[in-house]
Amino acid sequence: MAKSKYTYVRDFEREEQLLPSTWLVVRIDGQGFTGFTSKHKFTKPNDIRALHLMNRAAKVVMENMVEIVLAYGESDEYSFVFSKKAKAYDRRASKLITLLVSKFTAAYVFYWSEFFPDTPLQFPPAFDGRVVAYPSDRIMRDYLCWRQADCHINNMYNTCFWLLVNQGGMSQRDAEKRLNGTLSRDKHELLFSEFGVNYNNEQEIFKKGSVLVREQVPIDVVDKDGGNNIQRRKTVVQIRHCDIIGDAFWREHPEILSKQA
Amino acid sequence: MAKSKYTYVRDFEREEQLLPSTWLVVRIDGQGFTGFTSKHKFTKPNDIRALHLMNRAAKVVMENMVEIVLAYGESDEYSFVFSKKAKAYDRRASKLITLLVSKFTAAYVFYWSEFFPDTPLQFPPAFDGRVVAYPSDRIMRDYLCWRQADCHINNMYNTCFWLLVNQGGMSQRDAEKRLNGTLSRDKHELLFSEFGVNYNNEQEIFKKGSVLVREQVPIDVVDKDGGNNIQRRKTVVQIRHCDIIGDAFWREHPEILSKQA
Amino acid sequence: MAKSKYTYVRDFEREEQLLPSTWLVVRIDGQGFTGFTSKHKFTKPNDIRALHLMNRAAKVVMENMVEIVLAYGESDEYSFVFSKKAKAYDRRASKLITLLVSKFTAAYVFYWSEFFPDTPLQFPPAFDGRVVAYPSDRIMRDYLCWRQADCHINNMYNTCFWLLVNQGGMSQRDAEKRLNGTLSRDKHELLFSEFGVNYNNEQEIFKKGSVLVREQVPIDVVDKDGGNNIQRRKTVVQIRHCDIIGDAFWREHPEILSKQA
Amino acid sequence: MAKSKYTYVRDFEREEQLLPSTWLVVRIDGQGFTGFTSKHKFTKPNDIRALHLMNRAAKVVMENMVEIVLAYGESDEYSFVFSKKAKAYDRRASKLITLLVSKFTAAYVFYWSEFFPDTPLQFPPAFDGRVVAYPSDRIMRDYLCWRQADCHINNMYNTCFWLLVNQGGMSQRDAEKRLNGTLSRDKHELLFSEFGVNYNNEQEIFKKGSVLVREQVPIDVVDKDGGNNIQRRKTVVQIRHCDIIGDAFWREHPEILSKQA
Repeated sequence: MAKSKYTYVRDFEREEQLLPSTWLVVRIDGQGFTGFTSKHKFTKPNDIRALHLMNRAAKVVMENMVEIVLAYGESDEYSFVFSKKAKAYDRRASKLITLLVSKFTAAYVFYWSEFFPDTPLQFPPAFDGRVVAYPSDRIMRDYLCWRQADCHINNMYNTCFWLLVNQGGMSQRDAEKRLNGTLSRDKHELLFSEFGVNYNNEQEIFKKGSVLVREQVPIDVVDKDGGNNIQRRKTVVQIRHCDIIGDAFWREHPEILSKQA
Repeated sequence: MAKSKYTYVRDFEREEQLLPSTWLVVRIDGQGFTGFTSKHKFTKPNDIRALHLMNRAAKVVMENMVEIVLAYGESDEYSFVFSKKAKAYDRRASKLITLLVSKFTAAYVFYWSEFFPDTPLQFPPAFDGRVVAYPSDRIMRDYLCWRQADCHINNMYNTCFWLLVNQGGMSQRDAEKRLNGTLSRDKHELLFSEFGVNYNNEQEIFKKGSVLVREQVPIDVVDKDGGNNIQRRKTVVQIRHCDIIGDAFWREHPEILSKQA
Repeated sequence: MAKSKYTYVRDFEREEQLLPSTWLVVRIDGQGFTGFTSKHKFTKPNDIRALHLMNRAAKVVMENMVEIVLAYGESDEYSFVFSKKAKAYDRRASKLITLLVSKFTAAYVFYWSEFFPDTPLQFPPAFDGRVVAYPSDRIMRDYLCWRQADCHINNMYNTCFWLLVNQGGMSQRDAEKRLNGTLSRDKHELLFSEFGVNYNNEQEIFKKGSVLVREQVPIDVVDKDGGNNIQRRKTVVQIRHCDIIGDAFWREHPEILSKQA
Repeated sequence: MAKSKYTYVRDFEREEQLLPSTWLVVRIDGQGFTGFTSKHKFTKPNDIRALHLMNRAAKVVMENMVEIVLAYGESDEYSFVFSKKAKAYDRRASKLITLLVSKFTAAYVFYWSEFFPDTPLQFPPAFDGRVVAYPSDRIMRDYLCWRQADCHINNMYNTCFWLLVNQGGMSQRDAEKRLNGTLSRDKHELLFSEFGVNYNNEQEIFKKGSVLVREQVPIDVVDKDGGNNIQRRKTVVQIRHCDIIGDAFWREHPEILSKQA
């Protein structure tokens, strides 16, 4: 930037640097997505095309920001977990959240037609974002538990709700009343007895959301000298729909926690 | 969001609220645009299609966020000035900057093909953003002076530089050396004597950048009763390429400063 | 500080710098002063010795921190107004508030015996402090109006309350009930009709609080050469008990606002 | 506080809440103590009265703020470590640091004459304060290592320096030159060969600083019924001058780390 007598205005800039040695979680959320999904005729309770598009955009972000160790998505929100040691942009909050949100949004629009070939995008969507610092592994994991429990609770509710409306012929108001105060087992029962649906057989992506992790996969490389195929390993971003509340996931991906100071 | 035993993680969220009664300026910047512009073969020193696309995206933002009173753009950056009284998102910094950056980015990708019909977008771009609070009218105006002076200085330099390279047959390194230490009048002279270019005749959008303001325009409305045309006034976002350093602009748009407490 | 392999812990330090070109107001408040005043048998509703001690401590602060342009005290609180241009400690919030509070507290204990010669200090008191940035002259003045209005309202209430208790023989609970819902004119009437007290004749320090300003006073200096007395002017901190809500005070002290950018 | 039309000024107040589940360390420092110690003729390199007074004031703070688990002092500075779970003042930074600094300063002045019976306090001293959040036990311990290493390095230097000046008859400038570039073993050698001083025999309070911890001590209580003495345990603040860099101290005080979530 060129210098001038006006440069003093930079003294008003303030920069929040996030505490070192803490997990940084950036969560982004669709803005006004009730309108957006209705305008673009998303299927209810889940639109599989939309979920895959969210995952695609999240993958772009994760490939772009290498200090993200895990990402978790459900509905129109996505959480990105940066390593405790992450140094990106000197841990400046504004840089981190705006670049991440911008990259995600750009990818969402860029890949839209791939996932919605028959539904032109009507207007540019928007996502908000925030960053939170978590000081311990346990609390960071509890954050992810919070989001996955949220996914489960909402999905079960929405599955019941839209069956009551679409197949049960109820008004939305009546469906809401019907579900008011019901527990998890009541909803299981309702699904099975009234609609013959075993909730456990629902798609994992709906019940568990999506988990993005880096995993090593074998790849074939052509040997330069002999021309033979040789096996190498490459780190790629993989999409899973698994439980991240229990310990199994963390045992299978020990590098996520162990890489930390 | 559904409640669970994990909800305690919300206690770690921090929210910065920007000081009331101050001008809020959000500036966004293209990330890695040297690579982006070269990949998409932007013309140098200025690509008029790219500038119009930036203006289009900025207009979307300004139509969406009604408390923005003025926006100023040059090159791959844009500044949005919110009214001192702005209440959007309770003046929470994260919300404000992420939504603005997201909306801008989405519009940039969304409208890309309109401005670059023959150049497919290769990959999703990204913009970063920051917000600064300015306590007085004078300082806010000095901020805008700073950006417009920057536009002028950069554009004059770049005009010389690319003429030396493209028409003068110089290497980029030699062009840089040639310009090193030159003053404004030296560059005027160089342009005129060596390339017959009168800098003052360059396009205003290059020299001054783009100013977005809300202006009232007359519109014809069909009278419901009589069927006659009647004139009404409507506020629309207009794009100008004028000086905002001097007082004339501010006298012509008194509402920008006077609406303030 | 000596360097060592542990020095990295400094990276966790965060420093809030207050926005330039804003008025900074530091307000300090006695902590647990209900207990403190009862332990030291302060007279009710006002203890003139305690108010003078507060003023003495505030004067020490103001003589020590030259960018304070005005201070205002009532009861066990004091507000210090720093110039918009103040540069002290780079406007770092922690430094500013801790040093000010520390200096005030030290002076309060240091001068205690001067104002309470017959009442030994039983234990060390404490004050808390905070700093707020105000972007305009009007808002800074409204802050001071807020505190002086508070002083007035509380003093009128307390004057009634303690007369009802001490002279009227009421219990504290009954006095509270008696005053519940009364307006200003009711309290004036109560004071006059029941106790023969004209509130307007109460001491100004009780009704208006204390205002510390810098004023120039003439001083006699002995001329070095001739040995004659010559008059010079010196800036000293003066204590006033005047209205600061209206414009008169500000007209009489034009330098407070005019010194500002 | 009484309500009025001016109350809106409270909207400008900002409150920083420190991240939960982190160790909070408040460090206070004497302001301008070079002048203060010279004015009050402190002995060099260490004034034992001054150190005891610092410890006395720190004890007042620690007895007053029950969530402090450890305090460490050297020279004119003191660090107070709050439990990771500390809830005091909702972890609001301003409240925490101003009250702590105020309490410390008040106690310093209050107890001055007890430790300096023959040296009247000339003017009120001041301390500044800051708070830092440390996310893990290791980093919090490294902070304390940093301070104790600082104490050691400074004390060894100062011991040499003042012997060279006071007994060696050197000017301060010459003593500084003499010590420039010397290592720890050089200083040990200098002390022993030139002044017959074995540094290891210096007082622990000078070499290690002061550590305040809560310990349970047995107390005799008179049994209400039988009138016999019975033994109870009481938690008191104890002053130690021990190593806190190694593990031994932490093994002997397991409750400091284990009480944490």
